[in-house]
Amino acid sequence: MSTKEISPIKVGLIGLGTVGSGVVEILIHNANEISRRSGREIQVSLVCVKHIDKKRSIPSDDIKLVTDPFAVTNHADIDIICELTDVVELAREIVLSAIENGKHVVTANKALIALHGNEIFAAADSKGVMVAFEAAVAGGIPIIKVIREGLAANQIEWVAGIVNGTSNFILTEMRDTGSEYLEILKEAKSLGYAEPDPTFDMEGIDAAHKFTILASIAFGIRLQFEKIYIEGINNIEQQDIAYVSELGYRIKHLGISRKTAKGLDLRVHPTLIPEHLNIAGVEGVMNALLVQTDVAGPMFYSGAGAGSKPTASSVVADIVDVVRVLTSDPENRVPHLAFQPDALSDIRILSIEEVVTAYYLRMQMVNRPGALADVFRILGNLEINIETILQKESAATAAYIPVIILTQRVQEKKMKEAISRIQTLESIGGDVIRIRLETLDG
Amino acid sequence: MSTKEISPIKVGLIGLGTVGSGVVEILIHNANEISRRSGREIQVSLVCVKHIDKKRSIPSDDIKLVTDPFAVTNHADIDIICELTDVVELAREIVLSAIENGKHVVTANKALIALHGNEIFAAADSKGVMVAFEAAVAGGIPIIKVIREGLAANQIEWVAGIVNGTSNFILTEMRDTGSEYLEILKEAKSLGYAEPDPTFDMEGIDAAHKFTILASIAFGIRLQFEKIYIEGINNIEQQDIAYVSELGYRIKHLGISRKTAKGLDLRVHPTLIPEHLNIAGVEGVMNALLVQTDVAGPMFYSGAGAGSKPTASSVVADIVDVVRVLTSDPENRVPHLAFQPDALSDIRILSIEEVVTAYYLRMQMVNRPGALADVFRILGNLEINIETILQKESAATAAYIPVIILTQRVQEKKMKEAISRIQTLESIGGDVIRIRLETLDG
Repeated sequence: MSTKEISPIKVGLIGLGTVGSGVVEILIHNANEISRRSGREIQVSLVCVKHIDKKRSIPSDDIKLVTDPFAVTNHADIDIICELTDVVELAREIVLSAIENGKHVVTANKALIALHGNEIFAAADSKGVMVAFEAAVAGGIPIIKVIREGLAANQIEWVAGIVNGTSNFILTEMRDTGSEYLEILKEAKSLGYAEPDPTFDMEGIDAAHKFTILASIAFGIRLQFEKIYIEGINNIEQQDIAYVSELGYRIKHLGISRKTAKGLDLRVHPTLIPEHLNIAGVEGVMNALLVQTDVAGPMFYSGAGAGSKPTASSVVADIVDVVRVLTSDPENRVPHLAFQPDALSDIRILSIEEVVTAYYLRMQMVNRPGALADVFRILGNLEINIETILQKESAATAAYIPVIILTQRVQEKKMKEAISRIQTLESIGGDVIRIRLETLDG
Repeated sequence: MSTKEISPIKVGLIGLGTVGSGVVEILIHNANEISRRSGREIQVSLVCVKHIDKKRSIPSDDIKLVTDPFAVTNHADIDIICELTDVVELAREIVLSAIENGKHVVTANKALIALHGNEIFAAADSKGVMVAFEAAVAGGIPIIKVIREGLAANQIEWVAGIVNGTSNFILTEMRDTGSEYLEILKEAKSLGYAEPDPTFDMEGIDAAHKFTILASIAFGIRLQFEKIYIEGINNIEQQDIAYVSELGYRIKHLGISRKTAKGLDLRVHPTLIPEHLNIAGVEGVMNALLVQTDVAGPMFYSGAGAGSKPTASSVVADIVDVVRVLTSDPENRVPHLAFQPDALSDIRILSIEEVVTAYYLRMQMVNRPGALADVFRILGNLEINIETILQKESAATAAYIPVIILTQRVQEKKMKEAISRIQTLESIGGDVIRIRLETLDG
């Protein structure tokens, strides 16, 4: 289907804080990429804000601001309501009003889902509208989709993870700086990594909302926030962080839910975990989840947690999910290659000669002072920079010694030329071994 | 909707090798869990095998064996064809025949998709049937779903990863044992970790099939297997593994695809990567993917790669995806809490007193020989086993010294009792600090 023939989907936003602004920015900045995937243009047309007179830059003339959330949920032109507030009771009313009006809902509000999800889902089921909430748990990791759909063949044995970026940031800083909790919390507030009132993060309530949701989708139980055990990081002392380190552990604020013979284990609290585990190395505001299943085995996912952008990324993914359902036949909901067949790109694939990468080179060189100079000259003439040289010691009587060179990034074509020139040197015995090197750092 | 009122979905399997047997086993063993998720019973009714007289145990009387694949694709009762062969040209004919007959298709065949996907998807689009292929890449990690749906808001910058379990196993063994490639390959064959003809794995062709698919869904290009650069691990020498280790790197067989100003980088080859990266620690038959995006930032996923069960897990997840579309309105495709609303479980959530975990205890103890004996007695009486004790040195004149105890797993109720008894000891000053400990090892 062509993306041009059908009318745009209209989105109404409730809340224009960091996540809301992020959603608007992504939908505008990545509009082309997103409509190639969803098969349809997506327009934010109505946004509910608290203070309409506040100075702000609205990146599109199509967007109208209002202060009454129900003016958005009642508006006839709106197809999808994005609920992005940090309140609970009002959010419940907004979402129920949207559902009642036949609008689809996307929300990032974990407290709303953990506390009122059962009621909201029942209302959505009876009205035949979608309620999507991927952004409620672990912003940058699509863990809801992974568990609800990707692991549908499995009995899940347990889920454990770091789902509160702020408390993970504070524990990381306590370990790195040796400072006490209150001192780091003050710093985190001034850096904007912690809310002015950080109670929900520090006392584990935010993580408990998220694990209430995770336990429900992993084990098929109703949302029961009242049953989860909650302990925060607010009593963790510096000396304990030091002692556990000595013993080979890290303290992380962990959520855990596990099926046991006696019932379901469901809790969030500071936890010692062995330092050799992947998840023990998850630092700063990153989030991570471990899932143990009967068939697919253990899985590990990590990605950005706190922050407007990862959360906004999940909100927009949910919007695309809804748009795909509204735009295609169910059988064609997700295009095979992610993008609509008529929107594939013809970006050219580079030949290996054009590829730019760093290299590991190993050569056998005659064991005599100065033999390396010819190799340096060849690399220098081709503007190939050397990062590291490792010259292995050999018996003084050995005819050849192994020399290892790590280069900086260079086009493969040049490296091929360099190797063929080095190969002709009298001082080099046998083949030059070449393995590519990637730092994968951005 | 009740799961009992509607007829079961009938699945026809082509191929009953390790993956096919795994699919049958999962569908039977996890039938209850799966139909609670999908809203419908799923029955394997027809299976195409090569040798019908081979002795095998068929775990269900409902399954009929045939030797003609087209007897399956032409059968009127079959809703979904699972193509699980390791051939390509015949698989193409089978899948096109299934599509022509209006059947939905699930396949684990990466060569088929990489080489004939464009043709197959066009046929499926025109007939309005689904073709699902999550199992074609990184068995246990639902990476196709993550990229196609979870990251739909993002411009993907690059994808890199380990997608061939067999070659990762061999590189891991070369590093761990110090043996040469051919020796390890022989061992891997005898253990069943490598195929009798391991060419596809060792020469990088299998990984190239998978990265051809990943590049298409990440960057929205047609499948172009003929353009990917391929190098395998068959020339890696033991000495290079040792040298790169000295330099702080690991050699992994990596697939990489990256958008550059000049075009798309798309290649699989042995690659040095810094040993401090998560992905450098991915050992044995595990798979892992790194995805760098503009909005959600960097993400890391790891899970079981090679092996029948992780692949079968993805095949069954795809079957559930198809069944959900065939069973519900599009708006109710995936139930909010993963399981159908009328199939939620009432499994009891444990109170924290019932939870079983290990503990870290820290206490201030009077600085006198034998003071620990009372603590040991209390723990012993409550059958709490000690794993480790750390007694910090203090000045001989200090009144109290810190003592740290790690216990084995015990019910929280007992630990509370133990702490309250310890707290009453004269030899203990201040509060006993208690942090829970989890090893997350299975």
